[in-house]
Amino acid sequence: MTTDQLPGSAQPGPGAAPGAGALFQLLRDGRARTRAELAQITSLARSTVATRVDALIRSGLVAPVGGAVSTGGRPSARFAINATSRVVLAVDVGASHVSLVVTDLSGLVLAEHAEALSVEAGPERVLAVVAERGTALVETAGHTTQDLAGVGIGLPGPVAHDTGRPADPPIMPGWHDHDVPATLARTFAAPVLVDNDVNLMALGEHRAHWSRVDHLLFVKVATGIGAGIIADHRLDRGAQGTAGDLGHVQVPGLDAEAPCRCGNTGCLEAVAAGPAVAARLREQGLDVDGSAGVVAAVQAGELLAVHAVRQAGRDLGAVLATCVSLLNPSVIVVGGELAEAGEHLLAGVREAVYQRSLPLATTNLRIVPSRTGAGAGALGAAAMVLDAVLAPAAVDAYLAERRSA
Amino acid sequence: MTTDQLPGSAQPGPGAAPGAGALFQLLRDGRARTRAELAQITSLARSTVATRVDALIRSGLVAPVGGAVSTGGRPSARFAINATSRVVLAVDVGASHVSLVVTDLSGLVLAEHAEALSVEAGPERVLAVVAERGTALVETAGHTTQDLAGVGIGLPGPVAHDTGRPADPPIMPGWHDHDVPATLARTFAAPVLVDNDVNLMALGEHRAHWSRVDHLLFVKVATGIGAGIIADHRLDRGAQGTAGDLGHVQVPGLDAEAPCRCGNTGCLEAVAAGPAVAARLREQGLDVDGSAGVVAAVQAGELLAVHAVRQAGRDLGAVLATCVSLLNPSVIVVGGELAEAGEHLLAGVREAVYQRSLPLATTNLRIVPSRTGAGAGALGAAAMVLDAVLAPAAVDAYLAERRSA
Repeated sequence: MTTDQLPGSAQPGPGAAPGAGALFQLLRDGRARTRAELAQITSLARSTVATRVDALIRSGLVAPVGGAVSTGGRPSARFAINATSRVVLAVDVGASHVSLVVTDLSGLVLAEHAEALSVEAGPERVLAVVAERGTALVETAGHTTQDLAGVGIGLPGPVAHDTGRPADPPIMPGWHDHDVPATLARTFAAPVLVDNDVNLMALGEHRAHWSRVDHLLFVKVATGIGAGIIADHRLDRGAQGTAGDLGHVQVPGLDAEAPCRCGNTGCLEAVAAGPAVAARLREQGLDVDGSAGVVAAVQAGELLAVHAVRQAGRDLGAVLATCVSLLNPSVIVVGGELAEAGEHLLAGVREAVYQRSLPLATTNLRIVPSRTGAGAGALGAAAMVLDAVLAPAAVDAYLAERRSA
Repeated sequence: MTTDQLPGSAQPGPGAAPGAGALFQLLRDGRARTRAELAQITSLARSTVATRVDALIRSGLVAPVGGAVSTGGRPSARFAINATSRVVLAVDVGASHVSLVVTDLSGLVLAEHAEALSVEAGPERVLAVVAERGTALVETAGHTTQDLAGVGIGLPGPVAHDTGRPADPPIMPGWHDHDVPATLARTFAAPVLVDNDVNLMALGEHRAHWSRVDHLLFVKVATGIGAGIIADHRLDRGAQGTAGDLGHVQVPGLDAEAPCRCGNTGCLEAVAAGPAVAARLREQGLDVDGSAGVVAAVQAGELLAVHAVRQAGRDLGAVLATCVSLLNPSVIVVGGELAEAGEHLLAGVREAVYQRSLPLATTNLRIVPSRTGAGAGALGAAAMVLDAVLAPAAVDAYLAERRSA
């Protein structure tokens, strides 16, 4: 479901204080302001500001705050976003887990829950768990599902963001083309937005730690390899929502091109993903399995594993060097389970990127580990929902709906 | 110079009909509308619309048009953008030419001029020619430089778009860090915006032929190789303005990696740019020079040249396959002098891209030749200026300035 399709996004009627949504944007920074300050910032007439502030207060989205400012005469009332008036349920569905958080309108986490759950259980079973645990978590946070401004959910595969339907996801049997928003609409009377997990990790990491950076690339290295692109502060999903799908990109400069399960040779996943590194180590006599096994071997100081992870970093870096030339990001964040191997992976990435990229593109480039870790996906899902439901047009429509209800 | 820094982009004063800029955006589609229609579309009060329309009419940006609509009673006046009230000078500086166009506010070309000029003549000489020919061309279009809404200029090298200064441009001796806007400000009392030529070719091609496409990649293949990225309808310049700098990306799958003038091996320019293809043909005994020589040999039906161009297409396609996975565009436009070799280059590109990209990313992908040709850069420069100077805040500021003048 796109922002354009959010319920009630039609033009608000004349009684809905049009422009209140734009005023609300100003208040999203959390600062309290007087009507006079708002009139000065927006160049709007005091009477117009008063009407819009009144509409926002009636909706509960904005509230008067204490500490009125005295300017010599009568103290002026100050207003701020009422962040706990509504809440967001944000969900990260992984290959073998589901994490849920409830946040307020400022993105602050009010409650969280995680449990093991295989995505292979299929959409009906997984989404039933999301509905049940989500409802309970909203209550834990002191709210009811009536207070939900929206629900955001990240899935471990390609998703058509416009429709919320997975598109041929390789590790999600039974999910292809499933109408995720419709299934969750049985439980939640709020907009449901769906995206690929790596896109949401990029969004979560950007909002939590790099919000002043314009251009960021988030790379997840685990069972698969994928990237999320932040360009000019916005998530770039591409035409069909597959942007960042780096797993089967051909790695330049390989000595021998390993065959990949996709049928091609020399794919990035076939040399640098967790299972590929583990397989190489098993050939060398080390008994490890998957990303977790590789990370454990590295943490145990196993030199073969350290070398293999560093080489995986170089192969990943050879592809990221092309991404740097194409996108010119100022930050590359490396996350995902294999990234828990730490500096060894990053050192390989840096070695290859700095060798192959032009100086102008790397002078101000930082290559860093994920700081948000496992929580990035759910935080990103919350940010996606807040951006959509608190956009000026969506707020105007919400006010119009409440007025006509 | 960014939009934020355009002269007069401060908050307009209360007398400047704030919001007139937003109203003007609606009229940029060229349709004439009554005050009542504008009030309905914007949900604004009739009186507010009337004030804003009056301010726009006084500025000359909007004018009443004939053919008033009768709704039974008194016919209602209709208003439309007055596209010829101001003009834009757009300039494409190439390695060995300069092209200038003057457009109206709708982007329509009113006059054009091109002449041979080496960019190696340096910024003072080249910009003096731009100033002199530009002034004359504005007069040819029936205007004076007082009518200029802005000047846009594309340069054949990396440019820091924020400041308008070239950044270590390899083929532009003497231009590094030159303050292009300041030099042109001696002649033109209007904002001067500068960008890389390939970015502007992407913008020009997108506006002229693909304006309904969200995600487009424009690739220029000539003496160098570069790309311009349109993502969500906007030009993505990257953090330092070097996005799309594909010339020295490592080509995957090469049999032997050719040394490149940059010091690395296996760079895209070292195998697929015009000079590299010409050099390969000379090794095979064919006497050709540069992109033009290769194109002439292909057009003469020389089989060696046809094969060499197709192989250049495959090598370019091997890199573009990675770009497709990363960006998921729906259109790739191939332009630049070597693209004049026609279908042979495109066939090689398509072969490599479709072989290496995932089906989901290529199902709706079109790979097409440039239709705008040599004019794309200047058209893109005009579009860049119009987007900046006709943005709501810029129009509001312009109205405020005129009012206070």
